Amino acid sequence: MATVTPFPDHLRERFRALLARLVALPSIAAEGRALGETAEAVAALLRELGLDAEIHQTAGAPVVFAERRVAGAPTVLFYNHYDVQPADPLELWSSDPFELSERDGKLYGRGTGDDKGELVSRLVALEWLRERHGGELPIGVVMLIEGEEEVGSPTMEAYVEANAERLAADACFWEAGIVDAADRPQLVCGLKGVVAVDLEVRTAAYDQHSGLGPVVPNAAWRMAAAVASLRDTDGRVLIDGFYDRVRAATPTEHAVIESAGAAARDESVDLGAEIGVERFHASANGAEFQRRLQLEPVVNVNGIHSGYGGAGSKTVLPASASAKLDIRLVPNQDPDEIVRLLRAHLDRHGFADVALTHRERPGLPARVDPAHPWLRHAAAALEEAFGVPAVITVSSGGSGPLHPFSERLGLPVAMVGVNYAGGRIHSPDEHIRWRDVERGTLALVRTMERFAGLDAPASSAS
Amino acid sequence: MATVTPFPDHLRERFRALLARLVALPSIAAEGRALGETAEAVAALLRELGLDAEIHQTAGAPVVFAERRVAGAPTVLFYNHYDVQPADPLELWSSDPFELSERDGKLYGRGTGDDKGELVSRLVALEWLRERHGGELPIGVVMLIEGEEEVGSPTMEAYVEANAERLAADACFWEAGIVDAADRPQLVCGLKGVVAVDLEVRTAAYDQHSGLGPVVPNAAWRMAAAVASLRDTDGRVLIDGFYDRVRAATPTEHAVIESAGAAARDESVDLGAEIGVERFHASANGAEFQRRLQLEPVVNVNGIHSGYGGAGSKTVLPASASAKLDIRLVPNQDPDEIVRLLRAHLDRHGFADVALTHRERPGLPARVDPAHPWLRHAAAALEEAFGVPAVITVSSGGSGPLHPFSERLGLPVAMVGVNYAGGRIHSPDEHIRWRDVERGTLALVRTMERFAGLDAPASSAS
Repeated sequence: MATVTPFPDHLRERFRALLARLVALPSIAAEGRALGETAEAVAALLRELGLDAEIHQTAGAPVVFAERRVAGAPTVLFYNHYDVQPADPLELWSSDPFELSERDGKLYGRGTGDDKGELVSRLVALEWLRERHGGELPIGVVMLIEGEEEVGSPTMEAYVEANAERLAADACFWEAGIVDAADRPQLVCGLKGVVAVDLEVRTAAYDQHSGLGPVVPNAAWRMAAAVASLRDTDGRVLIDGFYDRVRAATPTEHAVIESAGAAARDESVDLGAEIGVERFHASANGAEFQRRLQLEPVVNVNGIHSGYGGAGSKTVLPASASAKLDIRLVPNQDPDEIVRLLRAHLDRHGFADVALTHRERPGLPARVDPAHPWLRHAAAALEEAFGVPAVITVSSGGSGPLHPFSERLGLPVAMVGVNYAGGRIHSPDEHIRWRDVERGTLALVRTMERFAGLDAPASSAS
Repeated sequence: MATVTPFPDHLRERFRALLARLVALPSIAAEGRALGETAEAVAALLRELGLDAEIHQTAGAPVVFAERRVAGAPTVLFYNHYDVQPADPLELWSSDPFELSERDGKLYGRGTGDDKGELVSRLVALEWLRERHGGELPIGVVMLIEGEEEVGSPTMEAYVEANAERLAADACFWEAGIVDAADRPQLVCGLKGVVAVDLEVRTAAYDQHSGLGPVVPNAAWRMAAAVASLRDTDGRVLIDGFYDRVRAATPTEHAVIESAGAAARDESVDLGAEIGVERFHASANGAEFQRRLQLEPVVNVNGIHSGYGGAGSKTVLPASASAKLDIRLVPNQDPDEIVRLLRAHLDRHGFADVALTHRERPGLPARVDPAHPWLRHAAAALEEAFGVPAVITVSSGGSGPLHPFSERLGLPVAMVGVNYAGGRIHSPDEHIRWRDVERGTLALVRTMERFAGLDAPASSAS
């Protein structure tokens, strides 16, 4: 274990000041608010740090791009975003969401956790790194800070493809990192793809008296039967071909799963108690629980609605019904093919009348290799900074635009940052803790030093 | 064919005056409004007609009871109700729902069709009958006018059982009768039973992020699968034992179905065009369509609701789901047994976690014999009054408290009255047409005269 490295006071002041400037800008992507203004503010911060920042226009919000390469040294790409979620409901905030507020060792405000605090911690990490190595950055840096992450990063794949040459790097820091409820740093090595699907069916021009039930088709039953046909009671997907392209887990991935399943505290037991689930699918626990959660694709029903749902009874045959699905994909499933297989499944099972639409830009699945040196150095740096081993995960159950970086640019991507499980991202009173800012920033610095083969300076050891 | 018997002018004035008094009373059972007051008003009308009216208290709204028996003559029991549906949405009414309004040969107001206009037509029919037979009623009369029909007649079975002796009669007029869109009088000989069932399932303490989909059970899928398991795509019920007690149709009932199926205009074709249904269950038409509609029990899904149903997508695993069913029964199915079979079906198919509740007082199925003299006389009287043959139906697809009268009292029951298919009962601008009042009232008079073996008086023929 490395000795603890204290977070310098002047960098703490720097962190607070920079974050206050960004939190004050209500850059809500869903509302298209203050996005250009915030991109300019971010570019200004980068220039203050001596980076050559550019504003790149896209079909949506502008991207802030910065680049400083160092001859003979590896280059790290930072992916972050300057946009935030809406702040409502405003009445549930203890302080103004667009004014940084410090209470009890925590920093409150919209975007403190997701993702402005992360962005600022990276800027501060670069300052710290420079200070630790004679006033010059010892590694190359490329920054890509987008403004539409909270609305699904609709232009990221195209932007990365168009700018692949300028984005060339040796490794990537993903937008954030997090410690869990037991203060263990997480190192997540994959995200699932996701495709959102709407189903609709209509059986008559308008709702009918249910006395006609023996003859008139029922939209509620038809949608229930269509949805029920998609999977079995343990969540196994029954769409022909759904699993055909699933990439087999590598020996390393298997080892990570086995290790997670063998942890002293079985995550499935704690989770079940917390969310009120007595039995997970197939009674899975331990490594099987981890295998399903991290490696399995799934068809989720987000909602189904048809007919009467109020008090008492209404004797009606619903004329229409709708359902919403999200399909979580793993490498190498292809969203377009999966949608075609779903359509074929519905047709084959007698549901040709169930109309299917899907979101135009599905998320693609991606994983990085936990055994890559960048990931191994990140895990070691997290352990140094937080004092406990990092929990390594092959893949989150969730989704995000990892694919452009890991697959298109072919980079190892590490999720190292300053969030914690109680930080209420996307919610009122979003915040980060100073302790995580200090440790997470150090972890960033140490990952880079380790990766570049730089010794930690003697002056930083206590 | 009998000659046309004109409706006397003084009875038209009488009809309008009595109906205006009743429509002015907002006797909305669902709101418990003006029920005692309306019962008193109805009793007063009956006394003006020379009947001995009584108010009987029940566990709910009072029943108005009247009785006048005639030695040596048969007795007819009239079943009607003085309560009405709520009047909202008020803004869709062309005139005050609680003020009788006459326009273009129609009488508008809440309850004109259902059921105050029917009640008044019976009072006027009895006056007319008296006038046609020397100033004295030539048959016995018992009237039972309840005040909770629109909320499911919760006390009718018990009331009829407790008062069976005083309700003794030879035949019964049901609360209403109707002519169809082609102005053909209908003679409906049965009503289905109905039991309303609520299903609920919960899979977690609260909704979960859908990234947990591979491990956390999904309430929306579970309810969809439970509902889907109840029937096949053509509506055939898959609950074990569901059809076991279904009484076989009699030769008369078969003949009625065959006759309906052989009509020049196939009802299934007209209905399909009107309500936008291209294919009925099992592609049924003609006699098979009639057989299903009239003789088949069915499990209807009135609604299913779970999770997100708004715009765009929400990546959530719903923690709870609900569905509403109405189960339509035919003789001799028993609602309590059917609910037990449904519970057993859910348990057997892996849905023991789906909670089931059902309305305490289900409706019981009932049919009367279309070949009974009372029904044959009613059919002949309808043809006399309306000038076209009555359309006889073994059973409606709908439900109502026929059982206490047909099964408990063992009476033949005829549905003869003054409504028409366009009358908007339960809706804004509810109304009846003068032409149907005249013809329907005459049909009541002629049914009684025929049944009692009384010649129509010579003075009434033109």
